[in-house]
Amino acid sequence: MTYCVAMNLDEGLVFCSDSRTNAGPDRVSIYSKLHRFSLRTDRQVALLTAGNLGTTQAVTAAIARDLKADRDRTIQTAEDIAAIADYIGELSVKIQRKYAPGGEEAGFNAEATFIVGGQVKGCEPELYLIYPEGNHIRASLRHPFLQIGEIKYGKPIVDRIVRRDTPAETAMRCALVSMDSTMRSNATVGPPIELLFLRKDALSEPAYYRIFDDNDEYLVRLRASWDESIVTAFNSLPALDYQL
Amino acid sequence: MTYCVAMNLDEGLVFCSDSRTNAGPDRVSIYSKLHRFSLRTDRQVALLTAGNLGTTQAVTAAIARDLKADRDRTIQTAEDIAAIADYIGELSVKIQRKYAPGGEEAGFNAEATFIVGGQVKGCEPELYLIYPEGNHIRASLRHPFLQIGEIKYGKPIVDRIVRRDTPAETAMRCALVSMDSTMRSNATVGPPIELLFLRKDALSEPAYYRIFDDNDEYLVRLRASWDESIVTAFNSLPALDYQL
Repeated sequence: MTYCVAMNLDEGLVFCSDSRTNAGPDRVSIYSKLHRFSLRTDRQVALLTAGNLGTTQAVTAAIARDLKADRDRTIQTAEDIAAIADYIGELSVKIQRKYAPGGEEAGFNAEATFIVGGQVKGCEPELYLIYPEGNHIRASLRHPFLQIGEIKYGKPIVDRIVRRDTPAETAMRCALVSMDSTMRSNATVGPPIELLFLRKDALSEPAYYRIFDDNDEYLVRLRASWDESIVTAFNSLPALDYQL
Repeated sequence: MTYCVAMNLDEGLVFCSDSRTNAGPDRVSIYSKLHRFSLRTDRQVALLTAGNLGTTQAVTAAIARDLKADRDRTIQTAEDIAAIADYIGELSVKIQRKYAPGGEEAGFNAEATFIVGGQVKGCEPELYLIYPEGNHIRASLRHPFLQIGEIKYGKPIVDRIVRRDTPAETAMRCALVSMDSTMRSNATVGPPIELLFLRKDALSEPAYYRIFDDNDEYLVRLRASWDESIVTAFNSLPALDYQL
């Protein structure tokens, strides 16, 4: 399983992912689900992946191959992030059809879901969720975040905290808390956690990127503090006056 | 959709359920999912239901019919709660087969899931989750709660708060917070909320039961306090020291 969350904020784009994949309980591995590509300085693009690992690897490989071969249609030549989402959606559908030609066979599911985000010079930063069918939706002003994979455990805290104008640091902290809640409730979502921030209009600058191992000093402090704060918050709630 | 949670505590059994059912967005109704039956004073039994409303209504009707007809095998004659879980599982499977004889037809799913709990004189209080296949699992000392329906949004807070020795009031408050988080994230889970507490070894006493409408004064206070406390808790977390 996977959990990825991405946010489109006034300050820029946040991407956060876990790194655990499993194909059965004894086939657990660590694979990065956060991908960046070497691009010229007119654009920054990041990709988060969930679903069948064969499909997601084939898609990222195809993106890199098209770039290297300098084809007409690549994430470097696309006019905006929407066009990149379209291109990745088409690659994904093509690869899924190749490996599951008759639709879903019993026990085999080639489906994959993606979040792609970034900025192309002259455009605003944008964020898209690409469905297994290849179509896509955009994060909006009112709903500035997108999630893929095991999304439910970590959704309530992002719902409460993240708005379009939330500061980047707060939003990244919230992504880490959301990830931690998910890892606690679902054993197939696991560390290391990757975090990327692409500042708006900073296309030629290096982005903020950090990888958190399970025993990362900040992550351990964050988790302990959250555990304590949640219990304190709960204990301060008004008591239910019940009579038997 | 439905969300129900039940807990087996040292003090007794807690049951909490929402009341919204939907069969499509314009077929939303209010149905109780918490059922109690008139029984002699040697036992108390409560049932929570999720899944196909036709199936769950047929099951509760069959339980009541067997009781009324004073049949050999009823929830009154069963030797313990495990035997009641067995009996309800068999009723459920029989009814599902009747209405979906060829297995699942396209778009039709007769499946239902139940939580049954209570106490029979001379036994400990017990709590079981009954799967659509009729088999069941028991709440344990280490995992004292069970959930059915839309369980993920409301699970993290119960995971953090509820232990076997948690006081009943705290556990009921936690059930309400868990329900509120679920209603906030999923529009098909909705009020009124029903709450029942069966105190251990109090078989002949009336149980605590309360129904909370959406604008219930306590529920409104609880929700406002939780909203505020969560944000305060989040804001007190250690800041992420990030450098671009």
